[in-house]
Amino acid sequence: MRVLFINPNTSPGFTEKIAAIATRHAFPGTDVVAVNPTSGPRSIESIYDELLSSPGTLETAIERLDECDAVVIACYSDHPTVYALREIADKPVVGIAEASMLLACVLGHKFSVVTTNREWEPLLWDAVRHYGLGERCASVRSTGMAVLDLETAGAETVDNAIIAAARLAVEQDGADVICLGCAGMAGLDEKVTAALGVPVVDGVVAALKLMEGAVAAGLSTSKRLAYAQPQYKEVVGLPALFDRPYVRR
Amino acid sequence: MRVLFINPNTSPGFTEKIAAIATRHAFPGTDVVAVNPTSGPRSIESIYDELLSSPGTLETAIERLDECDAVVIACYSDHPTVYALREIADKPVVGIAEASMLLACVLGHKFSVVTTNREWEPLLWDAVRHYGLGERCASVRSTGMAVLDLETAGAETVDNAIIAAARLAVEQDGADVICLGCAGMAGLDEKVTAALGVPVVDGVVAALKLMEGAVAAGLSTSKRLAYAQPQYKEVVGLPALFDRPYVRR
Amino acid sequence: MRVLFINPNTSPGFTEKIAAIATRHAFPGTDVVAVNPTSGPRSIESIYDELLSSPGTLETAIERLDECDAVVIACYSDHPTVYALREIADKPVVGIAEASMLLACVLGHKFSVVTTNREWEPLLWDAVRHYGLGERCASVRSTGMAVLDLETAGAETVDNAIIAAARLAVEQDGADVICLGCAGMAGLDEKVTAALGVPVVDGVVAALKLMEGAVAAGLSTSKRLAYAQPQYKEVVGLPALFDRPYVRR
Amino acid sequence: MRVLFINPNTSPGFTEKIAAIATRHAFPGTDVVAVNPTSGPRSIESIYDELLSSPGTLETAIERLDECDAVVIACYSDHPTVYALREIADKPVVGIAEASMLLACVLGHKFSVVTTNREWEPLLWDAVRHYGLGERCASVRSTGMAVLDLETAGAETVDNAIIAAARLAVEQDGADVICLGCAGMAGLDEKVTAALGVPVVDGVVAALKLMEGAVAAGLSTSKRLAYAQPQYKEVVGLPALFDRPYVRR
Amino acid sequence: MRVLFINPNTSPGFTEKIAAIATRHAFPGTDVVAVNPTSGPRSIESIYDELLSSPGTLETAIERLDECDAVVIACYSDHPTVYALREIADKPVVGIAEASMLLACVLGHKFSVVTTNREWEPLLWDAVRHYGLGERCASVRSTGMAVLDLETAGAETVDNAIIAAARLAVEQDGADVICLGCAGMAGLDEKVTAALGVPVVDGVVAALKLMEGAVAAGLSTSKRLAYAQPQYKEVVGLPALFDRPYVRR
Amino acid sequence: MRVLFINPNTSPGFTEKIAAIATRHAFPGTDVVAVNPTSGPRSIESIYDELLSSPGTLETAIERLDECDAVVIACYSDHPTVYALREIADKPVVGIAEASMLLACVLGHKFSVVTTNREWEPLLWDAVRHYGLGERCASVRSTGMAVLDLETAGAETVDNAIIAAARLAVEQDGADVICLGCAGMAGLDEKVTAALGVPVVDGVVAALKLMEGAVAAGLSTSKRLAYAQPQYKEVVGLPALFDRPYVRR
Repeated sequence: MRVLFINPNTSPGFTEKIAAIATRHAFPGTDVVAVNPTSGPRSIESIYDELLSSPGTLETAIERLDECDAVVIACYSDHPTVYALREIADKPVVGIAEASMLLACVLGHKFSVVTTNREWEPLLWDAVRHYGLGERCASVRSTGMAVLDLETAGAETVDNAIIAAARLAVEQDGADVICLGCAGMAGLDEKVTAALGVPVVDGVVAALKLMEGAVAAGLSTSKRLAYAQPQYKEVVGLPALFDRPYVRR
Repeated sequence: MRVLFINPNTSPGFTEKIAAIATRHAFPGTDVVAVNPTSGPRSIESIYDELLSSPGTLETAIERLDECDAVVIACYSDHPTVYALREIADKPVVGIAEASMLLACVLGHKFSVVTTNREWEPLLWDAVRHYGLGERCASVRSTGMAVLDLETAGAETVDNAIIAAARLAVEQDGADVICLGCAGMAGLDEKVTAALGVPVVDGVVAALKLMEGAVAAGLSTSKRLAYAQPQYKEVVGLPALFDRPYVRR
Repeated sequence: MRVLFINPNTSPGFTEKIAAIATRHAFPGTDVVAVNPTSGPRSIESIYDELLSSPGTLETAIERLDECDAVVIACYSDHPTVYALREIADKPVVGIAEASMLLACVLGHKFSVVTTNREWEPLLWDAVRHYGLGERCASVRSTGMAVLDLETAGAETVDNAIIAAARLAVEQDGADVICLGCAGMAGLDEKVTAALGVPVVDGVVAALKLMEGAVAAGLSTSKRLAYAQPQYKEVVGLPALFDRPYVRR
Repeated sequence: MRVLFINPNTSPGFTEKIAAIATRHAFPGTDVVAVNPTSGPRSIESIYDELLSSPGTLETAIERLDECDAVVIACYSDHPTVYALREIADKPVVGIAEASMLLACVLGHKFSVVTTNREWEPLLWDAVRHYGLGERCASVRSTGMAVLDLETAGAETVDNAIIAAARLAVEQDGADVICLGCAGMAGLDEKVTAALGVPVVDGVVAALKLMEGAVAAGLSTSKRLAYAQPQYKEVVGLPALFDRPYVRR
Repeated sequence: MRVLFINPNTSPGFTEKIAAIATRHAFPGTDVVAVNPTSGPRSIESIYDELLSSPGTLETAIERLDECDAVVIACYSDHPTVYALREIADKPVVGIAEASMLLACVLGHKFSVVTTNREWEPLLWDAVRHYGLGERCASVRSTGMAVLDLETAGAETVDNAIIAAARLAVEQDGADVICLGCAGMAGLDEKVTAALGVPVVDGVVAALKLMEGAVAAGLSTSKRLAYAQPQYKEVVGLPALFDRPYVRR
Repeated sequence: MRVLFINPNTSPGFTEKIAAIATRHAFPGTDVVAVNPTSGPRSIESIYDELLSSPGTLETAIERLDECDAVVIACYSDHPTVYALREIADKPVVGIAEASMLLACVLGHKFSVVTTNREWEPLLWDAVRHYGLGERCASVRSTGMAVLDLETAGAETVDNAIIAAARLAVEQDGADVICLGCAGMAGLDEKVTAALGVPVVDGVVAALKLMEGAVAAGLSTSKRLAYAQPQYKEVVGLPALFDRPYVRR
């Protein structure tokens, strides 16, 4: 099977990191493809950034939908393209935030998310509530470092900031499990586990495993109600590609 | 003061309707401006449609932010541009769905939303929960008519379908108040009230009144945490206009 | 239009303050009338106080219902006369606590309430839950100063206590918006905003704006279910005035 | 011990009924006293009625607080005097609605309330939520008969209406237990149990048993935070009796 | 009437303590019987311990069901035998945790539970949520002392640890009432009340009072839906006694 | 890797069915082992049945823990041995109910569970709430057929009953996805999907995929707080095997 990972920002460094981690953890027979759009912001740290990244992300997905079995949106947010893709694809689709939290649920009683800027705290609490997982989330804690800093700051600085936030989640908030709340943190799970002795879920790996599982089980997105294929309507001023997913009555 | 209404779809007929209703209900001294983007779908009935409408809507808003005191997104959904605009504007911003539900809260114990296609039911329940108003919402009921049908079907057919759905909301679900769940239903409030004897909230009017009230009270969007101005990052492959809202550190 | 503000305590100083603030913020054409009952406690700090203030408040309202277009109960609590008035009036009615919280919802992701005595914390949390706004409330924080102290303590002392509590709400609890939790705090909003850089909602102004908006939109309390006009029954030992609101079958 | 039952309406027939049932179910050594105020409405069917009944109810209670060990407010509602009495008394206080629901929780997984007029449905749902018991309540169902009709309609008519509503609660809503939602239904529990084979909780009996239990366990209302004794403030235009409960600093 | 207390652990010292406290608080005419199983762990501190204690507890109960009027499971946990016994008995059954929390609800606005090991915190929060009382619970706080330590540590050490945890619950978490979260804490209620001035509920006493009340009111477990008598099926490899409770179709 | 499936009832027919389905869906390299205890009831339809099945289930697990990488409890309930095993194992453990619901969350907006006897409805709602998934569950619907009937009734009868219940879930309750709520329904997923056009999740397959994913990701149960290894205490009257999992301080 082929699992398509779309990094919705335009930083190829992130995409490579995602590709490496997903490839390393794939079951034999799983083909990992990781791409990013050619338009949009270099990183995603706000709803505004999410919306600027959406046309490119959708374009990237629409072009590749026929050649994959499942799609992962590799941004640790409640990225709206997850839902748009569930509407226009008849394949399973998941974001790495939701995937990490669902997998965390089988590993402990409560999970916490460790993320970057403080602005992500309300956004990720909204994501938790949107997924219906408010009862399972002990806390969302931020390190105060911006997304792109994860790339440029020294590795030790980044590690220490994440470990410090995760420690508070475990010791003060009652978290049994830590979810790494940024695609740019991919690969840090082992260090955090070593420091704190709790399972640490990397969203890229969690999403890969859920998609491999769904595809192997023959399961796909329900097209019945919430994610019904959108009805055709005229679209103006945008590439014709965007017409393709509509169903004609 | 000037209140900017953006109809995020590309049907000028909707925009005119919105302009007419808002103008009719404005306080003296309020200048209503209603516009729609030049790119995107003719109507919005899915997350996919929402995302296709977002770049044009943001563009339209960014160009006009300096010339208005408040912004209304005139689509009866939890349209993501509401949040993006709260991030990039230092003016109050609201969508007509949230506005109608907040105003309904002072008129009755529970409200119901009457909407078009059945696919809107889960989307609008998500909106209700996102606004944190789940305890106040008796039901979301759909008429089964698509958004564009509201324009083309005979007025009586549309009216009867909406009244029938609203009647079930009142008699079976315990709604005290009805929210008209589509910008295209603007103006039908009086007919529904006449038929059912309950207050019927038109989202365009509700949004106008909340924005007039906020501006008059000297209140604006909090830029402190959730809606902090986004930090600058490079944006590629999109018009330079989209760089403008970022703050440089 | 005429908006009737009833200060349910018997301290005319509060009433004058309320009148001044409401008058200053009214739209042209809005006539503000502020009154208080002649019986009941000088301030309201408990359910017991609320109930002692209720007969006088209802009397005051019943006498003036015909001459106004909307009623505001200007006590920052879930004062039970709000609901009684919704039952007996066919005009919009709101309390300043609910009004401030609803308006805060369009300005930020979460609001906090800053109030006086610590005993108000559970009472206002109950109010928040009764309004169905628990998901939007970051915290209720008290200054530890009694209501009447707001009148007698030096202005600087009061200001500092309120700003300190609000600062904790913003920095520790994640509040984007502050609601001033006492009618006696009216007018302090600008100072708190200046100190903290967040919008601060004064309940008197919020209630005024919601009532002006509802009346201008032609909306009133739903008489259908929860706030149906009470059926007549004999009332003994009380002024005949209290018979007036009942409906005879 | 002595348990004081206050029927807050002014219908002595209700009071006698309450006295008879409580006396019949009292443990040996429990002295039941049932009274009603001399002012207020003949029955309570709205918040307005509740507030008209409050001064008389408080007066009745204040005069007798020293001579009893616990107080029951015998009106099936979230009557506000329950909370005022918890503030001003250092004895346990409960209303028959809360008592019946708490006792129902040990008898089944979910309870339903069967009440009179349809207007009680939202009021009793608010009560359920205020008690924090929303997860345990299957439904609130009304018979459509007004409170005073319970006294005047033929017994069989009343019984049949209650049994029909209770049957729907059991068969459609998944209720394991029925709470009789009106003090005027006292004594019907056996008939409903005979018809439906489920336990039926009479609020008067439930309140008696909780108060007997609390007193025997040496437990009383916490005066620490939510129900702290109110601080003195001047009260004007009301009987001096109402000054008595305040604490002077 | 006879109330059967089953201490599900195999430490007779606990059983004696429970018997003494229950006997001291029983109404005249109530016969208290306290027993423990002969198989299972000496104390219960995990789900694993609960399950090891379950066969012995059920055996003990089945043998004595005909000779009692109500059953109390005297372990401060959401012990699963409570639900099994509700299924197989037509008598009221309660655990001391649920009983203490329900009684606490009439004494204050919020209760906190003070318990032993930290591992109990998530378990007791699950219990609180299972009882549907999440809105009424201010906190679950642990002393860090294991259950059996309560027997062996000096009385003063135990008392001080419990009082310290309870003080935090009252002063920081807003608890009005403390529930003693371990059967082994029975008898400490008076000391904690003396230290903190808040009501302290002992689960053994609370359960006794609820069961005395239910029996006196003629109320028993609903057998209608959730606690219907289990249908017969073959049971292999276990004592024949376990067949007895099944109903044959 | 090896995944151990324990069918906690004592019907080998169920175990074989589970083995067959899990084997058919396993990734290459996964070794499926399915067993059942030698003591306990033939089927599980109540908490009482669950508790009778627990000692044998734990025994079976303890004996095999060293030889497997993950454990599945293959009973569609919130079987308490799942939690006991998370406490005593340092491997991932899941029940088929929780697994099916978590996987359903990525396939649709809401799922419904279709189960057997009506008594399962409250039990499975409790499970849903315990998993914290109440917001994602549209309904729990029962077919009214007992568990063992699934084995003996004609296949067509069983299929039709399940399809009828699932149809109501989709058409009336708004379910996008169906979870088959009984291990004995394993294998019916394709028929239900064919009839209704929605994804149908088989809990055995879902649990297999989650466990394969967790093991491949190097993730296991958190031993930090909620599922900490239980401390040793003497266990009397039970096989010595049950001492093994305790940790000695």
